[in-house]
Amino acid sequence: MKFTEFQTGMVIKHPPVVVEQDEMVAFAKSYDPQWFHIDAERAHEGRWGGLIASGWLTCSLAMRMAVDSALEGSESFGSPGVEKIRWLVPVRVGDALHLEATVDSVRISSSRDDLGIMRWSWRMYNQRDEQVLELEATSLFDLG
Amino acid sequence: MKFTEFQTGMVIKHPPVVVEQDEMVAFAKSYDPQWFHIDAERAHEGRWGGLIASGWLTCSLAMRMAVDSALEGSESFGSPGVEKIRWLVPVRVGDALHLEATVDSVRISSSRDDLGIMRWSWRMYNQRDEQVLELEATSLFDLG
Repeated sequence: MKFTEFQTGMVIKHPPVVVEQDEMVAFAKSYDPQWFHIDAERAHEGRWGGLIASGWLTCSLAMRMAVDSALEGSESFGSPGVEKIRWLVPVRVGDALHLEATVDSVRISSSRDDLGIMRWSWRMYNQRDEQVLELEATSLFDLG
Repeated sequence: MKFTEFQTGMVIKHPPVVVEQDEMVAFAKSYDPQWFHIDAERAHEGRWGGLIASGWLTCSLAMRMAVDSALEGSESFGSPGVEKIRWLVPVRVGDALHLEATVDSVRISSSRDDLGIMRWSWRMYNQRDEQVLELEATSLFDLG
């Protein structure tokens, strides 16, 4: 999409993506090697009753969906940050996650007319329509 | 570390870790395939003058350092969320990043005496002591 196509209130959706155990464990071995993310046997005995995904994988999967459904082909050049990440429900092996993102605001910078700024809220749900992730993202666009 | 070892005001440090191009590009191809994260040639011509890391990789690298320097061997069982992620300076190929985390508060839940709650601020710096990342994390501990 292009910057001019984003409109306040627009809802952008990405179809479900299944989270496989191999990816979940590989990600966590690299970036979040806590036992409930990497050791299936111990996780099964533990409080979660099975492996759960690193929250950073959940965010990364949401990012991939945001790129594929919205940012691909746009003037996007980065982000200054993200607000209020909430990992609401554990993500488990085999979950099918989908993204719904709402455009909260979209504007051109008051100080630089070549800078587009979009704030959007991302929500991810699993196959039971339980919300697993919430966050508020900001994306920057190069309109020069 | 154990939950009882964390004290308000404590600063936890992890030594520098170098970010290699292969890892940067592989991560972004999976989770953030925007051209300035995956296409070295185009990125060199673009506004950043070279590849920059996905912000989610930067967060994931910080998580790994938080696990290795603090959470490993603890009663940690997850996190409800993170506040105020700020990607302050681009992370580039070959940067050596280190984590400094400050314990902002550590307490036992008023409603559940088997639940420990720690809030801590994470800062990552590059080899020029430029801060590249800021965020406020919450970690939960199973004291049962």
